[in-house]
Amino acid sequence: GAGADNDLYINQAIVFIEDAIQYRSINHRVDSKSLWLYRWYYSRTCQWILSLTITIILALAFIEEPSSLTVTSDVRYRRPAWNPPCGLTESIELLCFLVFMVDVSVKSYLIGWKEFWKNKWLMAYILTLIVSLADWIVSLSFFCKESVRIRRILRPFFLLQNSSMMKKTLKSINSTLPEMASVVLLLAVHLSLFTMFAMLLFARTKDNQQDKEWVVYFRNLPDSLTSLLVLLTTANNPDVMIPAYSKNRAYSIFFILFTVLGNLFLMNLLTAIIYNQFRGYLLKSVQSSLFRRRLGIRAAFEVLSSLKETPASAQQSCVSVGALLQVLQKAEMDSRCKQAIMRSLKMCSCDQLSAAQFQKLFEELDKDAIKQHPSSPEYQSRFMQKMQFAFGHPYFGYLGNVVALANIISICVVLVMDADKQPSERDDFFLGAINCFFILYYLLEMLLKILAMGLKRYLSYPSNRFDGLLTIILLILEIATFAVYGFPHPGWRPEFMGLLSLWDMVRLVNMLIVFRFLRIIPNMKFMALVVTTLLDLVKNLRAFAGILLVVFYAFAITGIMLFKGAVVPLGNTRYIGNNPNAFVFSLWVNNFFIIFQGKKVISWCFAHFQAEVICCLLYVLSVHLICRWAKIYFVAWWLISSVIWVNLFVALLLENFIHKWDRRCQRESLSDIEYQRTVELMFRDVLEEPTEEELMEKLHQHPHLQLCR
Amino acid sequence: GAGADNDLYINQAIVFIEDAIQYRSINHRVDSKSLWLYRWYYSRTCQWILSLTITIILALAFIEEPSSLTVTSDVRYRRPAWNPPCGLTESIELLCFLVFMVDVSVKSYLIGWKEFWKNKWLMAYILTLIVSLADWIVSLSFFCKESVRIRRILRPFFLLQNSSMMKKTLKSINSTLPEMASVVLLLAVHLSLFTMFAMLLFARTKDNQQDKEWVVYFRNLPDSLTSLLVLLTTANNPDVMIPAYSKNRAYSIFFILFTVLGNLFLMNLLTAIIYNQFRGYLLKSVQSSLFRRRLGIRAAFEVLSSLKETPASAQQSCVSVGALLQVLQKAEMDSRCKQAIMRSLKMCSCDQLSAAQFQKLFEELDKDAIKQHPSSPEYQSRFMQKMQFAFGHPYFGYLGNVVALANIISICVVLVMDADKQPSERDDFFLGAINCFFILYYLLEMLLKILAMGLKRYLSYPSNRFDGLLTIILLILEIATFAVYGFPHPGWRPEFMGLLSLWDMVRLVNMLIVFRFLRIIPNMKFMALVVTTLLDLVKNLRAFAGILLVVFYAFAITGIMLFKGAVVPLGNTRYIGNNPNAFVFSLWVNNFFIIFQGKKVISWCFAHFQAEVICCLLYVLSVHLICRWAKIYFVAWWLISSVIWVNLFVALLLENFIHKWDRRCQRESLSDIEYQRTVELMFRDVLEEPTEEELMEKLHQHPHLQLCR
Repeated sequence: GAGADNDLYINQAIVFIEDAIQYRSINHRVDSKSLWLYRWYYSRTCQWILSLTITIILALAFIEEPSSLTVTSDVRYRRPAWNPPCGLTESIELLCFLVFMVDVSVKSYLIGWKEFWKNKWLMAYILTLIVSLADWIVSLSFFCKESVRIRRILRPFFLLQNSSMMKKTLKSINSTLPEMASVVLLLAVHLSLFTMFAMLLFARTKDNQQDKEWVVYFRNLPDSLTSLLVLLTTANNPDVMIPAYSKNRAYSIFFILFTVLGNLFLMNLLTAIIYNQFRGYLLKSVQSSLFRRRLGIRAAFEVLSSLKETPASAQQSCVSVGALLQVLQKAEMDSRCKQAIMRSLKMCSCDQLSAAQFQKLFEELDKDAIKQHPSSPEYQSRFMQKMQFAFGHPYFGYLGNVVALANIISICVVLVMDADKQPSERDDFFLGAINCFFILYYLLEMLLKILAMGLKRYLSYPSNRFDGLLTIILLILEIATFAVYGFPHPGWRPEFMGLLSLWDMVRLVNMLIVFRFLRIIPNMKFMALVVTTLLDLVKNLRAFAGILLVVFYAFAITGIMLFKGAVVPLGNTRYIGNNPNAFVFSLWVNNFFIIFQGKKVISWCFAHFQAEVICCLLYVLSVHLICRWAKIYFVAWWLISSVIWVNLFVALLLENFIHKWDRRCQRESLSDIEYQRTVELMFRDVLEEPTEEELMEKLHQHPHLQLCR
Repeated sequence: GAGADNDLYINQAIVFIEDAIQYRSINHRVDSKSLWLYRWYYSRTCQWILSLTITIILALAFIEEPSSLTVTSDVRYRRPAWNPPCGLTESIELLCFLVFMVDVSVKSYLIGWKEFWKNKWLMAYILTLIVSLADWIVSLSFFCKESVRIRRILRPFFLLQNSSMMKKTLKSINSTLPEMASVVLLLAVHLSLFTMFAMLLFARTKDNQQDKEWVVYFRNLPDSLTSLLVLLTTANNPDVMIPAYSKNRAYSIFFILFTVLGNLFLMNLLTAIIYNQFRGYLLKSVQSSLFRRRLGIRAAFEVLSSLKETPASAQQSCVSVGALLQVLQKAEMDSRCKQAIMRSLKMCSCDQLSAAQFQKLFEELDKDAIKQHPSSPEYQSRFMQKMQFAFGHPYFGYLGNVVALANIISICVVLVMDADKQPSERDDFFLGAINCFFILYYLLEMLLKILAMGLKRYLSYPSNRFDGLLTIILLILEIATFAVYGFPHPGWRPEFMGLLSLWDMVRLVNMLIVFRFLRIIPNMKFMALVVTTLLDLVKNLRAFAGILLVVFYAFAITGIMLFKGAVVPLGNTRYIGNNPNAFVFSLWVNNFFIIFQGKKVISWCFAHFQAEVICCLLYVLSVHLICRWAKIYFVAWWLISSVIWVNLFVALLLENFIHKWDRRCQRESLSDIEYQRTVELMFRDVLEEPTEEELMEKLHQHPHLQLCR
């Protein structure tokens, strides 16, 4: 009937508008039941369950068998980690797999059979699930004693396929790969030519005293290659050239040439290429998001315009305001946007909306959220007004900053004085007394500010929230200290009591005070700019961080599998105690979860490979083969984590910062208003609006929606 | 008389056009004698003498007293460097000062008294000369035994003031300093807050086993600050966190946070800021160069238009073609440009030139030089034509590349096989024989190419010149080898004869063959692009390199003065032999001329400061105070050389590469033509032409030129 049809159209419009808001594709089934399923699938609960499942399956690695999640990382001291009984993690895994199976079947059903065959991500998803399940069955049939678990390496895929932003970013990275490969090829040519030069230059001579360089760094082809590769990471920079240089200064020319060409030119060229290429692709992906939004809104318009109640007389199709209101009320969207759209709908006097008007209404979605602070309370008494003026004035805030600085300086002075003292000689009285005074001042400042600004206005500023929270924590800590240890007095050095010693309490208070000092940031213009850039960057970086996590997880699991048991404490620390390098290597081998700490770590690992300390250790343990694998593993990790990822990061930072900087100059006057920036908004001024023809063409290609006209 | 006036005008026009060509300011005296002096001063001979003087005075540091220019850098083995007798370097210096005095007086005279007072560079020049002369007199009166020589630190100023490009670049860098200072301030805040955190976190505890972290890295404020500063340079990256991390894994959070914030965010922010700021200033300086050129040409037009022979009737001022021809013949300029301008003058039928036409004629100066290769010879015989086709074909070049690759691979194989052999076991027969064969092929290839292309066309390609030169050198080396050691035969292992041993000869030949392999570069598209970008960069980097040299020279001299005698060989290598660090430090202290090798070197120095090895050594030598000075010195050097200069370099590379890359996409079809790019040409499409009003206003402000109208 017409009523059922109308209901369907309204439901379609709701879903399309929700798609537009979330930048989702509209290419899904549009019959009533599928729409219900679609809305259920994209409801918060469902998505939350899915995210939780992904988190759980990723977190399993921390408690599974070859994990090393213990407090200390020292193989000599640490206790064996808890091993879950066979079947526990496996049953959790099975539950996760069930959720994923539901997920993939709903997704496949919703996009329809035809689209399914085109969607490589879904196919890969199903394949991953099949392989994982097979591996799971194998695992159970071996009673969890099997050595290789392929499904653990596949796990990050579940994270990857669930985020459209990550898939987009991956696509962008994928497009820059040919260019990157060219530079990496150049690097390889550079490396191999210089390796040959080095082998010719530092050949073995008759005088054993003279060929230290050959013995240590250029003994054979793999050694020479590794030496120069490590030089490219700058880890062994002066060391590698010292023997040759001490023989003849002219040898340094070789190393300088290699470093300048490799590090200064080629490595930075990689940055330039990634910046140049990636800039375009990020813009493109944002452009396609915009297209999806416009398309969703247009689709909603088209289905609403085919409602039976609309007069068919008009040549131009249009939508009644009533129908739109109905849709808006049912659609899930940000309440601010909803209200703004409702408001403009009411202000618009017309009864019918054209496509352009319809599109214009939803432009509210693209706008920055402008934050307005509630107003201060208005006091009647003159005294209160004066108080309000005094304590609401920026100078009062500056005074607070000065006091915080004074506190920091006093802590610093005490630290410097106490630096060399034995813990038993330390007198905590002075620090206790001044901290008590300062914390009282902070409390007073907070109360006076609340008085002047009113609680609501006070809390509407992030810096005040930060300040207030820390002040309250400090107050609680201080009260707890006094309750347990009494008031400070000269020679105040009580014994350990309760959960924390007094010294730990004082340290904690001091750290919080240092942390609280960050409240000065909004008062310094350049600092505020930098911090907001960084915060934006963190927002925009989520997709990157996700991909890094995926790569990292795969590497960590591979590393654990490759090096499991490669380093064991050799009884009375014969190798490990004397050998900090081997000891540190054991750190890295046993836990790959904290490996990411800048490029140096990995090159450091290289450098110590070079010194053959670890290889020797591995020889001792008769796992000689591992040494070569480890090299390949580390080279791969270095290339991905430090070379590619760091450069991507630099590219994104450059992009973000330059945009922000240009904008700052334009909007100098509007600096009071806080904008919430996303990667979409950053590019808004360069984005192109899709034309009507493009939208309609795309709509007519929709696999499930049959438009009347 | 009118003739003398006309001569003056012609001379003025000549000088103005030469100014325009060289992007010089036209604000100099314009009377006949001054013009003669001006042309003499800017003649090649004079400028060459000036450059030579600057080179000599800078090079004096290599032979002056605390220098260490010896073959080996090892303080244990090296012989005392040659000490010139007192008065030798001093008299050379005096000669240089005399040249500089002539230079500064001519310059001051030429720009005139009024302008002199506005020109800070000239004032600084005079001041530097006065201080240097005073110091020179002091030096002589102490018979060269004085310890501090201020004039040595001032020397690089003479280099700086002589290059207008360097002065411009310095101005650009100067303008970015406020922004950079903000980030450096941020870094300092970051560092100091984290230092306080670290001191609170890693305080001394009662258990001596547990506070390794405190003992080694965070014993007191300076130590903590240094530890974290070094962590910022990533030199001590995993080492610094190991003791704490082995106690409790959670401590790594502190270090990760510090590294991510400091290294990943703030350091890259510096790159972003420098890139953003510097881009604008480079463009601005190029824009001002363009203005100088247009102004010079306009000034030439104005003086020529006031020649008596011109008909005064015309309302618009104009210039006769004859006068211009006269000027062009006398002006010193690139012969290609001169011919092009003459040609267009002749093609222009008119007798009088308007200002716009005049300006247009000289646009030839801004154009890229298009290189045309001479044509191949035309042979009569069919056979020769076929030969020409075969050996002029690109495939013949590719075959040559394949043969060169085969040669490289064969050398590589021999190197791998011979890597571990004693020199006495080595058999040079195989390598000698195959190299002989390959070199014959190279010779044949060269001759055939010359036959096909003709000598002139062959030599017009840089890759052919490179190829041919190396082939000839290889041939000579091979002939010399055979002449001295006879033809190779199995077991060919002759004794040392002549200048080089056979082994050295073979190595040299092999190195040249590896080097010759670079001829493949133009054949690989991406590689060619990268290499041309790098070459452009080197051209554009001259000003930067100059400034780096200036900074570097000042640092080197300061370092030599600060650390002179700080490290001496302690008899039987008690400290130095066992202590590679101390030994290496002695390297760095004794010769600062090769210090620039990427950022790692300096952070490496830091790291070893940290280990207190060197400080201990300095304690031993009772120069404790130096340790602190050295820290400050190294921090300054790290900031300038690695942080600022490397970032400037990256900014320039990004700029160059992105321009080039965009251009490549536009001119894909024109890739055969070789362009000679300069920084001016790179920006040509974004430069704005100065307007007529601006030019005339500037001309009327000229301090010496009185225009009639």
